[in-house]
Amino acid sequence: MSDIRFDIGSLHAAYASGMSVTAVVETVFQRIAEADDPGIFIHLASKADLLAEAEALGGFDPVAKPLWGVPFAVKDNIDVAGMPTTAACAEYAYLPAKDATVVARLRAAGALVVGKTNLDQFATGLVGVRTPYPIPRNAIDPKLVPGGSSCGSAVATARGIVSFALGTDTAGSGRIPAGLNNIVGLKPTVGALSAAGVVPACRTLDCVSVFALTVDDAYSVFRAAAAKDDADPYSRAIAAPPLGPRPPVLSVGVPAKTDREFFGDAAMQAGFETALRTLEELGCRLIEIPFGDFYATANLLYEGAWVAERYAAIADFMDVNEAAMHPVTRTIIGGARKLSAADAFKGLYALQAYKARLAPVIASVDLFCVPTAPTHYSLETVLADPIVTNSRLGTYTNFVNLLDMCGIAVPTGKRDDGLPMSVTLLAAAGKDALTASLASGLHAASGLGLGATGWAMPANVAKIPEFDDDMIELVVVGAHLSGMPLNGQLCALGARMSRAARTVASYQLYALAGQSVPKPGLVRVADGDGKSIDVEVWRLSADAFGRFVAAIPPPLGIGTIELDGGTSAKGFLVETAGLSQAIDISAYGGWRSFIAKAGRERQRPEAVST
Amino acid sequence: MSDIRFDIGSLHAAYASGMSVTAVVETVFQRIAEADDPGIFIHLASKADLLAEAEALGGFDPVAKPLWGVPFAVKDNIDVAGMPTTAACAEYAYLPAKDATVVARLRAAGALVVGKTNLDQFATGLVGVRTPYPIPRNAIDPKLVPGGSSCGSAVATARGIVSFALGTDTAGSGRIPAGLNNIVGLKPTVGALSAAGVVPACRTLDCVSVFALTVDDAYSVFRAAAAKDDADPYSRAIAAPPLGPRPPVLSVGVPAKTDREFFGDAAMQAGFETALRTLEELGCRLIEIPFGDFYATANLLYEGAWVAERYAAIADFMDVNEAAMHPVTRTIIGGARKLSAADAFKGLYALQAYKARLAPVIASVDLFCVPTAPTHYSLETVLADPIVTNSRLGTYTNFVNLLDMCGIAVPTGKRDDGLPMSVTLLAAAGKDALTASLASGLHAASGLGLGATGWAMPANVAKIPEFDDDMIELVVVGAHLSGMPLNGQLCALGARMSRAARTVASYQLYALAGQSVPKPGLVRVADGDGKSIDVEVWRLSADAFGRFVAAIPPPLGIGTIELDGGTSAKGFLVETAGLSQAIDISAYGGWRSFIAKAGRERQRPEAVST
Repeated sequence: MSDIRFDIGSLHAAYASGMSVTAVVETVFQRIAEADDPGIFIHLASKADLLAEAEALGGFDPVAKPLWGVPFAVKDNIDVAGMPTTAACAEYAYLPAKDATVVARLRAAGALVVGKTNLDQFATGLVGVRTPYPIPRNAIDPKLVPGGSSCGSAVATARGIVSFALGTDTAGSGRIPAGLNNIVGLKPTVGALSAAGVVPACRTLDCVSVFALTVDDAYSVFRAAAAKDDADPYSRAIAAPPLGPRPPVLSVGVPAKTDREFFGDAAMQAGFETALRTLEELGCRLIEIPFGDFYATANLLYEGAWVAERYAAIADFMDVNEAAMHPVTRTIIGGARKLSAADAFKGLYALQAYKARLAPVIASVDLFCVPTAPTHYSLETVLADPIVTNSRLGTYTNFVNLLDMCGIAVPTGKRDDGLPMSVTLLAAAGKDALTASLASGLHAASGLGLGATGWAMPANVAKIPEFDDDMIELVVVGAHLSGMPLNGQLCALGARMSRAARTVASYQLYALAGQSVPKPGLVRVADGDGKSIDVEVWRLSADAFGRFVAAIPPPLGIGTIELDGGTSAKGFLVETAGLSQAIDISAYGGWRSFIAKAGRERQRPEAVST
Repeated sequence: MSDIRFDIGSLHAAYASGMSVTAVVETVFQRIAEADDPGIFIHLASKADLLAEAEALGGFDPVAKPLWGVPFAVKDNIDVAGMPTTAACAEYAYLPAKDATVVARLRAAGALVVGKTNLDQFATGLVGVRTPYPIPRNAIDPKLVPGGSSCGSAVATARGIVSFALGTDTAGSGRIPAGLNNIVGLKPTVGALSAAGVVPACRTLDCVSVFALTVDDAYSVFRAAAAKDDADPYSRAIAAPPLGPRPPVLSVGVPAKTDREFFGDAAMQAGFETALRTLEELGCRLIEIPFGDFYATANLLYEGAWVAERYAAIADFMDVNEAAMHPVTRTIIGGARKLSAADAFKGLYALQAYKARLAPVIASVDLFCVPTAPTHYSLETVLADPIVTNSRLGTYTNFVNLLDMCGIAVPTGKRDDGLPMSVTLLAAAGKDALTASLASGLHAASGLGLGATGWAMPANVAKIPEFDDDMIELVVVGAHLSGMPLNGQLCALGARMSRAARTVASYQLYALAGQSVPKPGLVRVADGDGKSIDVEVWRLSADAFGRFVAAIPPPLGIGTIELDGGTSAKGFLVETAGLSQAIDISAYGGWRSFIAKAGRERQRPEAVST
């Protein structure tokens, strides 16, 4: 294999050092040849076209085009202008005149479409073998199924043919093949990436997903692609902030021990337990959650109404071309014909009941961790029993889109038998950044190489990124410090303590007079006239911060507090007009020291008397 | 008619003056006898039972029981323990062991169930005549249809038999009969009132609704009944704050003139235009909105998938008892049998497309005003053409629940021909308080009597209540004043100006030094040392306030500003440490005066040179 690493950081570093995009295009085609797997791509760009497109990018400019010169593959149920869309059914194929919205956005960011990848026909399957085209080989172990439905996209990424690939995910198609090929699979919140120009599976659930070698890469692609799109009625504006500080302690829901299902695969079970220990080492608090309602939700997906969405999507084609379809796909989707509109609504009611029951469960933790797949299956096993094996692979994925959760599958190690181990972090809609942030820490902790490339994990993900959750920092000085009488007000608003800190030496602290709860007041003074004061930094949402500020009684208010170390944050100040009869306690260095001292002074005589 | 007024304010005043609940129960039965309309109730409580229930309330206590001793009726598709639920189909009837959640909540608040009221069978209809029981007479004009489906509840309320009545509303059943009987019909946000214990029509759209003689009464009942209910998966926590200050200017969307449909009824058209003028007199700004997409959404309701919800709700009964059903109802609901699950999803997709297109339209105004019904129909006309007349009555109601809007039908006057005129105020989900607030003003402005009772509007609604929208007030002093350079920051956060104001005479205002945008700083000083300063009070959400405060640069901050007139609010203060080189401009009395003066001083020399 050529020695050009295709993770985006390495690739851009190489571009910055003068490597040409021509060399990258050449490498793409060289790697396709080396892979020698006719099952990966259904359609390839010509090298001439790709070179022309690359030339048209102009000079390397990762600021204007964050994916400048980054090659990617597109699952063949997503439109790329000028390349046929087959959905792995040649008879269904059409030639789209324009790119799907996500493809257009990624091209605008400088990425280069290498080709269209194989899939379980009409994105119906988790195995990657329900295709009339050759089955792509699992990149890690050719005896295993590649996973699906986005099989070609996952294998192309795992083999380093492309830097990333687009998949789709309705029931797990963006996570299972990531897990089976030692790569990252980011399944966004439904609607975060536009589905305009995508062949529907279940329109109410479909997500475009991202396969990449690292979490940072997957998240970068997600950020470039995410946007509300008027062309997709299910599109939503979902936050895609940069990955920043992660809260120090995350609560992570995990299936209760008795609810974990591995279908007898002890290596997977052991691998999952190892991953949970890593989460604890990363500072997470694990909370066992009964999983029966999640599994029951999952069962709705193929037992009932939602199969009718798959049929609705292709009924015009299927009703006249049924013989052209893959026999397994035909059997599954054809089952929808016997379902009535009343059946569909009964399915929706059943889902709503589970949603209502699970909403408080999902809200009770920051995120969840589940195995990506409960077990590995060989090609032979799946071909012998295509329905049951597929269903079992979806144990931890089928419920996710139904419950409006986002998720990211991330490699966590090798199992005892050397096969890939992966977990999926799940969270409520909109928490894509939080799941990615923790996934990045997990991936880094694994020390794994990337996909099947043999490339070591790049240094830029070997640190744990922290999460920027759009919270506002609040410096508290007195009665709101942890353990103090008014701290409960902060906790009731969902605030979390971030850290202890000290102000710069330009403040005076006063014990205020006439307060029902004893309180200090902090005042900024001329530099040199003040002291450094002990404070705490708490974090809370804008809404909570707004309510908190609105309730602060005079003479206290909120201004900007300058902290040691060059940072600043909003925090408590006092109006100087409110300092009459107040006592300057700056010499104590903080309210807690003052209280402790005052307490000791009060206690001393009593201590003598005992 | 007995002279006991049943609007809740009058009733409670009478209780407070010593009237007995026994007298009220007697009056209820006396009015039932006087109405001489066997179509109103399907089942009545026995007088003995009702008296016993009233006795059990104990002494008059409107604080512990805000609906103490208030008689109400319940549409006969809502369970009342011990009374049969028929849904206007005797063969379908069952005897519920427990109250529907809403009935239980209202009883807990002290209200007394008088009986179960007639309806269009299975709540399918807007006319009130699709019932095997006698058709209730319209309370205003017996030649007209009473409106439905909640016909009995509306007529019982309009006749003053009860203080209020529960209806249900899927397509307009809580609004149309209110409009046709000169009463108020509050159709809450879907899920605000639990549907547990209600015979479903369309479970995804059904609302329990409230008929009352005044807006205040309807809203009081709504507040008592509203609560998230684990027994209803579609239940939601929807705010039901007390009615408080209404923002001074509301933007009200109205159908564009060319999109208004009255089916040739010039009196209704004129009545609607009069109502719009009243809105303008109340300070509203009318904005004409193209209504084609709203009408197209409405058409989805009976043309497609949602009929299947009605079938799903009663399929077990209907499939074996079809002959027992009202022929019109049977025809409509039976149409669902030919619809497939794929058809159902296609309907959902069509709705989602309209929702996506209309979301920005709905967000562009505070609320909407539409006619409640486009025209009045006689019994004769409806019985001759039951489907088309029904469909036309739903012109302005059918789209509302599909688009997740709340609404309230309110009488606005008499048409030129003496028939009742009503408009419906609509708004996005959760704005129930806002629509009620404006409806109260409209109702008061109408000067109408209540229902068909002959009672004048009570004095306590003759003032316009204002709306408490949970906003935070912010006092701005300088660059954020309206028209000033940073005012756009407030507008971008959705803030609205509430009023101009002045501080108490205890502040100093400084022109700060070294600011890129000129800014003043306000400082509280000892009483007597300061001036009264001109300010503006703006209002914004807690979230917006939080973001705003978090972005304020030092030396400015937010504290409490005391205003003339005894109120105070959060607002801009400056740290005294930030006043170096600042100029005391308190003598100008405000930043705007200072700027004007400084501007004149700068302009004067230039003016000389021209």
